[in-house]
Amino acid sequence: MSQIKQAAVVGGGVIGAGWLARLIENGIDVNVYDPAPDAQQKIEAVLINSRHVYNKLTMAPRTKEGAIHYAASLEEAVASAELIVESVPERLDIKQSVYADIEKYAAPDALIASSTSGIMPSDLQAEMQNPERLLVAHPFNPVYLLPLVELVGGKATSAETIERAKTIYKSVGMHPLHVKKEIEAFIADRLLEAVWRESLWLVKDGIATTEDIDDAIRLGFGLRWAQMGTFETYRIAGGEAGMRHFMEQFGPCLTWPWTKLMDVPEFNDELVDLIADQSDQQSGHHSIRELERIRDDNLISILQALKLNDWGAGKVLANYEKMRYDAAGADAIEEGDDFSKPIRTLEIQVPNDWTDYNNHMNESRYLEAFSQATDAFLRIIGVDVEYVAAGNSYFTVETHIRHLDEVAALQPVYATTQVLKGEGKKLQLFNRLYHEDGRLLATGEHMLLHVSLETRRSSAPENQVAEKLSEIVSLHAALDTPDGAGNAIG
Amino acid sequence: MSQIKQAAVVGGGVIGAGWLARLIENGIDVNVYDPAPDAQQKIEAVLINSRHVYNKLTMAPRTKEGAIHYAASLEEAVASAELIVESVPERLDIKQSVYADIEKYAAPDALIASSTSGIMPSDLQAEMQNPERLLVAHPFNPVYLLPLVELVGGKATSAETIERAKTIYKSVGMHPLHVKKEIEAFIADRLLEAVWRESLWLVKDGIATTEDIDDAIRLGFGLRWAQMGTFETYRIAGGEAGMRHFMEQFGPCLTWPWTKLMDVPEFNDELVDLIADQSDQQSGHHSIRELERIRDDNLISILQALKLNDWGAGKVLANYEKMRYDAAGADAIEEGDDFSKPIRTLEIQVPNDWTDYNNHMNESRYLEAFSQATDAFLRIIGVDVEYVAAGNSYFTVETHIRHLDEVAALQPVYATTQVLKGEGKKLQLFNRLYHEDGRLLATGEHMLLHVSLETRRSSAPENQVAEKLSEIVSLHAALDTPDGAGNAIG
Repeated sequence: MSQIKQAAVVGGGVIGAGWLARLIENGIDVNVYDPAPDAQQKIEAVLINSRHVYNKLTMAPRTKEGAIHYAASLEEAVASAELIVESVPERLDIKQSVYADIEKYAAPDALIASSTSGIMPSDLQAEMQNPERLLVAHPFNPVYLLPLVELVGGKATSAETIERAKTIYKSVGMHPLHVKKEIEAFIADRLLEAVWRESLWLVKDGIATTEDIDDAIRLGFGLRWAQMGTFETYRIAGGEAGMRHFMEQFGPCLTWPWTKLMDVPEFNDELVDLIADQSDQQSGHHSIRELERIRDDNLISILQALKLNDWGAGKVLANYEKMRYDAAGADAIEEGDDFSKPIRTLEIQVPNDWTDYNNHMNESRYLEAFSQATDAFLRIIGVDVEYVAAGNSYFTVETHIRHLDEVAALQPVYATTQVLKGEGKKLQLFNRLYHEDGRLLATGEHMLLHVSLETRRSSAPENQVAEKLSEIVSLHAALDTPDGAGNAIG
Repeated sequence: MSQIKQAAVVGGGVIGAGWLARLIENGIDVNVYDPAPDAQQKIEAVLINSRHVYNKLTMAPRTKEGAIHYAASLEEAVASAELIVESVPERLDIKQSVYADIEKYAAPDALIASSTSGIMPSDLQAEMQNPERLLVAHPFNPVYLLPLVELVGGKATSAETIERAKTIYKSVGMHPLHVKKEIEAFIADRLLEAVWRESLWLVKDGIATTEDIDDAIRLGFGLRWAQMGTFETYRIAGGEAGMRHFMEQFGPCLTWPWTKLMDVPEFNDELVDLIADQSDQQSGHHSIRELERIRDDNLISILQALKLNDWGAGKVLANYEKMRYDAAGADAIEEGDDFSKPIRTLEIQVPNDWTDYNNHMNESRYLEAFSQATDAFLRIIGVDVEYVAAGNSYFTVETHIRHLDEVAALQPVYATTQVLKGEGKKLQLFNRLYHEDGRLLATGEHMLLHVSLETRRSSAPENQVAEKLSEIVSLHAALDTPDGAGNAIG
């Protein structure tokens, strides 16, 4: 699925390590070079977070993690790399000297992507021999989770470089935003810097504490901005009259004293103390590690929520999942599969929110898993989106579950489906849920009826479904009747 | 639960109507006054959205909606109101003249809350007879959904007014943020204005389109800001070294040309056309009504996601739910209830996301409803948060469901629980799910075992639970064995 096999990351701080995590998750081998003695330790701390995240972010099949190699020299890191990610400190002279070294050892067409937050690519590439292959690819922390990456070319950057970069970043689940004209700090950081400066004024002038400002963001417009930006939000505020109306209504405010950014607060010890002390008071009861985990879990929940609505960052995630399913071959179930045994119809990790106050998977989620397994079985016999759209489906009329063992959040489980009966309108299935370690967690016996979605009454399945079903029925007729089938409670 | 019984809303635009929606949802009667001929029509459009939202936002018991009265005069609207919400156009002279009229007709201690986005309360109250009862209560669109309200007092505002207002806004599910010093545009709008002005520059200078900017927000830092503000986010970026380190690292940037806000873009037709045309291209394929619905559904999903993590706006929602459960009297089940019949253990509206591709409640949600009913029954016999914390609980070991009828999203349903057996470690329950119109939708037979959460093995219940259970067992012994109990599938 990914477009490249080998990358290098130069500079293993929080941004470099975030890139590393995202690249290996997508099966890309990465050589990392950072001469700092504690670099490996810091990178591994980030990988603990990123692996936690990827365990939960999506149920789509994951590829085998790419290999990490801690290179002893820049040469060793970049020699075979198709993409070289530069995440060294934000100083033009340092970056230019790193590029000079990279050009000595790397292939001449290797892509060089700077993670800089604000330096213009034309300045970065000014001294390079092959400047056409340098661009800025500016990510957002946590890099392994947030989809945005701003792509900015300099005067010498080729159009092909931008296009290659777009393809690569899409393949690792990101949304590349091409900034068409280069300016310092690009797009997002200009907005962030404006808010940062205005916030410093508010604290310095004693209007608000750091906590007040954070609450003003996250309990109000921050919730809006997780899904729509400033323009779409204001478009709605303008009502049916639209954006023009909004602009005309609020245009005059532009000359009102509604921002203090005509000036910049002086950066001195007093300001640092004020902010740092308030921040300690606000967040000091959590370690940075805890805050990272809280942030990441919240981001996962928000991304998953938006995915359900197929919107914004959730849409990026949905596209990425689709890519992964496609790469893994359509639900891992193919026409040519062996249907003579119970069919593996589900493979998931138990989602975090499937557990209850007993700290195990809630009883209702057993049926949710079985319901998904049943749906997968139905797709195999041809009950797919088109079949349902044409007005046909199966409804479950009876369910019998034996809850045999507990299972905790994030554990890998799978289900198999065996057909007990499949004749005329009736379909009787027997699902088993297993832990990947082999433990049988539950069995589910299900009676379904074929229905017309128009009359909502039972009806005969279409021929092609009946045929595919009878094929499997005759294969499964040779299987033993499962333990627990046909039982009543008690 | 709510602190007041009667409010008035003066001005029925999108903000006034949003206040109206939030107040009536919390059982407060509202008189609304707006002389515009289409005011009622516009308000009703907002109420369609807000009722959709409240149907989905929480499963906590809702109170009876307060009554809406469209008053023919300001006098009629404010005469009996304890809280008067002013949402008239943003002009000081208009607002001051409205206050003069309000003071003629309202009780002298009625609270007057202005929704202004930016005018200072000291200016608003300058001409009032009882200025101590005026404050700014600045909400965020959609008012019926976003929890933030900024409270700002003027020079003459009394401390008691601020305290009364805090109590009222908390009781309707909001987070009142008291802005301690008054400035124009308060806190959030200063940040919004900085981003707005910077965004206008970016579009005007051809760096980015409105869509680029919105993507830069909602695919990157907007996702962070839905849960943590600028300070907590940067605290994490500083790593274990903390906020001081971050400040020192990025302090120098303050003098870099990273914002253009040393100047304001000129407001002219050219700018309006540029923005409006790009906005049409970006969002014009959705009507404003559609965008509102998309925004609200996304916000609900985000709020619910954050609620699961008990964080930020999700925490505000969780507290509000707790208030509602408390107000409804602990699941509407009291010690004094009649337990001689099957016990009503659940009342909900089918959540939107409980339905599947057959456009009805998914089979697994039947068990989710029964699981909730079972939990409510367990609380009645004393298996509550403390009992579980002490290491005791019940696990379900077997389930038999008959799915008898379909039910669509947002339909009102309820469940009853009948005890079939309750002796020693074993508990056998029979749940029934009904539509409020009386249709039986499903039955669920459940075998549970009492367990020790330490050994994860079966154990005898504590005495107080065994006693309460046996009381109900003897009452339910007189009931008929339900249809379908003891059945196997097939």
